[in-house]
Amino acid sequence: MSEAQSGTVTLLEVAPRDGFQSISDPLPTGEKILIIEDLVAAGVTRMELGSFVSPKAIPQMGDMREIAAHFKGRSGCRMSVLVPNAKGASLALEAGYPDLVFVVSVSAAHNMNNVRQTVAQSLDQLRAIVFEAGEEGAGLRVDLATSFDCPFDGTVPLDDVRRVFAEAFSIAPGAEFALCDTTGRADPITVAKRFQTVMAEAPDDTVWAFHGHDTFGMGVANALYAYNAGVTIIEGAAAGLGGCPFAPGATGNTATEDLHFAFEQGGIATGIDREKLLKAADRIAGLPGGKTASHLRIVPRERAA
Amino acid sequence: MSEAQSGTVTLLEVAPRDGFQSISDPLPTGEKILIIEDLVAAGVTRMELGSFVSPKAIPQMGDMREIAAHFKGRSGCRMSVLVPNAKGASLALEAGYPDLVFVVSVSAAHNMNNVRQTVAQSLDQLRAIVFEAGEEGAGLRVDLATSFDCPFDGTVPLDDVRRVFAEAFSIAPGAEFALCDTTGRADPITVAKRFQTVMAEAPDDTVWAFHGHDTFGMGVANALYAYNAGVTIIEGAAAGLGGCPFAPGATGNTATEDLHFAFEQGGIATGIDREKLLKAADRIAGLPGGKTASHLRIVPRERAA
Repeated sequence: MSEAQSGTVTLLEVAPRDGFQSISDPLPTGEKILIIEDLVAAGVTRMELGSFVSPKAIPQMGDMREIAAHFKGRSGCRMSVLVPNAKGASLALEAGYPDLVFVVSVSAAHNMNNVRQTVAQSLDQLRAIVFEAGEEGAGLRVDLATSFDCPFDGTVPLDDVRRVFAEAFSIAPGAEFALCDTTGRADPITVAKRFQTVMAEAPDDTVWAFHGHDTFGMGVANALYAYNAGVTIIEGAAAGLGGCPFAPGATGNTATEDLHFAFEQGGIATGIDREKLLKAADRIAGLPGGKTASHLRIVPRERAA
Repeated sequence: MSEAQSGTVTLLEVAPRDGFQSISDPLPTGEKILIIEDLVAAGVTRMELGSFVSPKAIPQMGDMREIAAHFKGRSGCRMSVLVPNAKGASLALEAGYPDLVFVVSVSAAHNMNNVRQTVAQSLDQLRAIVFEAGEEGAGLRVDLATSFDCPFDGTVPLDDVRRVFAEAFSIAPGAEFALCDTTGRADPITVAKRFQTVMAEAPDDTVWAFHGHDTFGMGVANALYAYNAGVTIIEGAAAGLGGCPFAPGATGNTATEDLHFAFEQGGIATGIDREKLLKAADRIAGLPGGKTASHLRIVPRERAA
């Protein structure tokens, strides 16, 4: 256990990617851009804007080129897109995205449901992406989905996480890596333990991220335990938007506002302005069918001031 | 940060006290007893059954004698009652309760609203209670309410917590002590820090408890951080029932099921059977106006199995 802490953490915003895909009717591009602009204005320095997937699978992501064009040349916030395969990576690089996020699930069943590939096929795709990203000088993160629990197969063996990480690392040793709690079923102590195990098998300068959901109420605690294990990038979604369409029962990402509250009140700086973040979250919560999962907004306003 | 942990924690159940008082129409005594029996059957070994307060202030607690009579002589679960003053303590001891919980707020404003006394007056009451409990051989815990945040005055200075603890400890050196996050506004790092500070000023064998609410989504993380600081008793309420009637805006206690999930999945034994606990929580959630704050029940059932 730490004493009172000091330091910094990077809150990586995934509402435009993990969140927007959970809204059944695609949002107008202009509305998306307003939200992204709000988040940038709040001080968000890393954001996943969307994914380059088939519009047939996820129609909400059909406007990734228009969004790229709007933000082209913008500095201050590193904007990434998720790609499930080499084709998506090529399209993302063509559109001008400087940062790619490749996703592969540790669980075979989830990988097949999520990207219609075996894990080995996904890793072949990663090999091609590393080559192309290298040529283009693009950043790369590898998201290891279902690093704790799989919606189809239950608890994912730690040895499977170690094996898939080792293979991915051998292909993309310069990438950032994320262990993802896709279903929100991980518990804090296990989150810390799995990070410690996998981090011990990688060079010290590897950059790590944690992607979590608040499905079982562990979202904030999981994030803090990941941070204490040495993870410097914590993913969240403003208003707690999100939920993998291929992970039945998973609720939203941990609310960025809740993470902000936990870290900032504890003396760990995020660089994000709380009031502006809440403004962005309110806009998201006001979307058709939207609601906030932010505890700062659920609680009566006079006590949240 | 800990490695994978092992060990045990005591989850002290407060639904019958902090929870039932939040239900506007007093429950029939028989219904209360069924719930308490369910919780005992689940393996709960510490429970607050209610409080000895004026039925005018909290009419939900008018049947504390009948409940005591029902459980008289029962072993396996230490049953306590909250008392705001020496008169309540006398009545509780007369009724046969073997364990008293005395509450005093660190914040003057909350103490006046909660028990209509100054902090100094409350400490005088504690002096009288220690004497009487000693004569009767009763156990005693001192709850330091608003040890982090006050619904009226905001952040409570740490020095105030140290001072009120020092005074209470000098009066009741053999008692257990709880720092209470009455409003749910504490953050995990601050919880750990305050416990570490106050624990350093007490003998090593002092027994500590943490009482928390999930108002701002920090409930589980706060509990884990308290545990990591050395707290062995964590309070929760099945179904997340509760909310201090004199702390505007505070929502329910952290759900015992969520605490159970976090600790047990992390390898820290609670001695409580999960399915039986969920059964008790479901009964509570089914009360008039009741609903569950348990994430294990909010999530679609097939994923909570």
